[in-house]
Amino acid sequence: MEKGTLLYEGKAKKVYRTNDENIVWIEYKDSATAFNGEKKASISGKGRLNNEITSLLFSKLQELGIESHFIKKLSETEQLVKKVDIIPLETVVRNLAAGSFSKRLGVEEGKELSRPIVEFYFKDDELGDPLLTEDHIEVLQLADEQEVALLKEKALHVNTILRDFFKELGINLVDFKLEFGKDSSGDIMLADEISPDTCRLWDLETNEKLDKDVFRRDLGNLTDAYENILARLGGQTVCTK
Amino acid sequence: MEKGTLLYEGKAKKVYRTNDENIVWIEYKDSATAFNGEKKASISGKGRLNNEITSLLFSKLQELGIESHFIKKLSETEQLVKKVDIIPLETVVRNLAAGSFSKRLGVEEGKELSRPIVEFYFKDDELGDPLLTEDHIEVLQLADEQEVALLKEKALHVNTILRDFFKELGINLVDFKLEFGKDSSGDIMLADEISPDTCRLWDLETNEKLDKDVFRRDLGNLTDAYENILARLGGQTVCTK
Ligand SMILES: Nc1ncnc2c1ncn2[C@@H]1O[C@H](COP(=O)(O)OP(=O)(O)O)[C@@H](O)[C@H]1O
Ligand SMILES: Nc1ncnc2c1ncn2[C@@H]1O[C@H](COP(=O)(O)OP(=O)(O)O)[C@@H](O)[C@H]1O
Ligand SMILES: [Mg+2]
Ligand SMILES: [Mg+2]
Repeated sequence: MEKGTLLYEGKAKKVYRTNDENIVWIEYKDSATAFNGEKKASISGKGRLNNEITSLLFSKLQELGIESHFIKKLSETEQLVKKVDIIPLETVVRNLAAGSFSKRLGVEEGKELSRPIVEFYFKDDELGDPLLTEDHIEVLQLADEQEVALLKEKALHVNTILRDFFKELGINLVDFKLEFGKDSSGDIMLADEISPDTCRLWDLETNEKLDKDVFRRDLGNLTDAYENILARLGGQTVCTK
Repeated sequence: MEKGTLLYEGKAKKVYRTNDENIVWIEYKDSATAFNGEKKASISGKGRLNNEITSLLFSKLQELGIESHFIKKLSETEQLVKKVDIIPLETVVRNLAAGSFSKRLGVEEGKELSRPIVEFYFKDDELGDPLLTEDHIEVLQLADEQEVALLKEKALHVNTILRDFFKELGINLVDFKLEFGKDSSGDIMLADEISPDTCRLWDLETNEKLDKDVFRRDLGNLTDAYENILARLGGQTVCTK
């Protein structure tokens, strides 16, 4: 497989073409952003950590029958994935109240919800990723009713698997964001990344935050938190001391 | 019927007890507020106009079988209604894109939606009335699944009737907000008000705004706009010139 020209660059990853038009080459960057890009930093090692963690999680999900864009890890910061047309929705699953949910709706952070819920946000940086109802998704023609039902079902299935998986590692999966895409034959599958950038992960015993909130809220060293997650996942950690 | 003590005072109305515990006495005030109370004014005649318009619209809806809290108009600014426990949801129906819908989702104001949609907002001034998904409504226990389905159905039924009714009067019903409540026997019915404060009403020919946006956006004389609506509804207008 040959790495081609840059297709696009996002806040966390660069996407390159390859000599196969159905496959792209993803490079995880060392940049951290929050609040729709208002807060920014370059954090050495973050690209490697998210690439390793995402690769492990997509592999785990594939073992359990959850189809995704993931093909293989190429290097510490690179992976090969199926090229998809990303559906412009951020699909969020919440188990406990936290972040914008707590703030917007006045629910104490950490409160367990009576059941996991799915939310959709319009993936549009200019609009600031607004929350959408299912009616919004339909009239904006971002997805049809059946697709929305499928995304919800897939998201809740991923939640069931990951929540148990993290629990065994002493981690509370509070909430997470997924992106889905359509491959060249129209199949809808999981894409993008699943990492401490896109999940809220709390230590089950201490509630210590081991995710991007460390950066958002200046709670300490981000890579220490991500290394902690990677170590528990059984991945190759790097001693930087 | 005797007017009792003040039960509560909102931004637009005062609610008094009566000698019947299932009936309250509503007084429409001359105050205008917008942007969650940030913009305020006292506008002479507004209370009368909203009381007259609401009374006419609830009467019309009752003729067509839509149950509501409305019992009768008492005076220019007062009406008797059934006392209900207001469900803390603002139920919004939209036919055309406008206001927060346009701004949040990047849709040009005035664009007709492919079908009418229903939105729910948490009626909570402190939280700024945030948009809710149906999952939010359930986990916050604001209403259960059946109740949400009922509110949607009732709201769309009201829309069908009012849209046609206003159309005959040369008015485009762009969107509107409803409140529902439960009476002492648990029946869910339409409550609160339906007025140019709670509807977007545009002249069908000119698109002139004949609603609270005149106040929100400083587009001219508010009572002239509301008198125009009342006149078309066949109500008793007052010459103030
Ligand atoms: N399999 C894929 N095929 C094509 N694009 C993808 C795939 N997976 C993720 N992407 C997209 O790659 C882009 C870069 O990712 P990222 O840096 O996280 O972007 P963003 O700034 O939008 O968060 C995003 O638009 C993401 O949706
Ligand atoms: N039939 C009713 N019984 C009891 N309360 C009602 C009824 N109809 C409306 N209300 C409530 O009366 C209050 C006063 O109305 P308003 O001034 O419009 O309040 P707000 O400032 O919340 O918009 C509101 O809380 C409204 O929901
Ligand atoms: Mg991203
Ligand atoms: Mg009100």
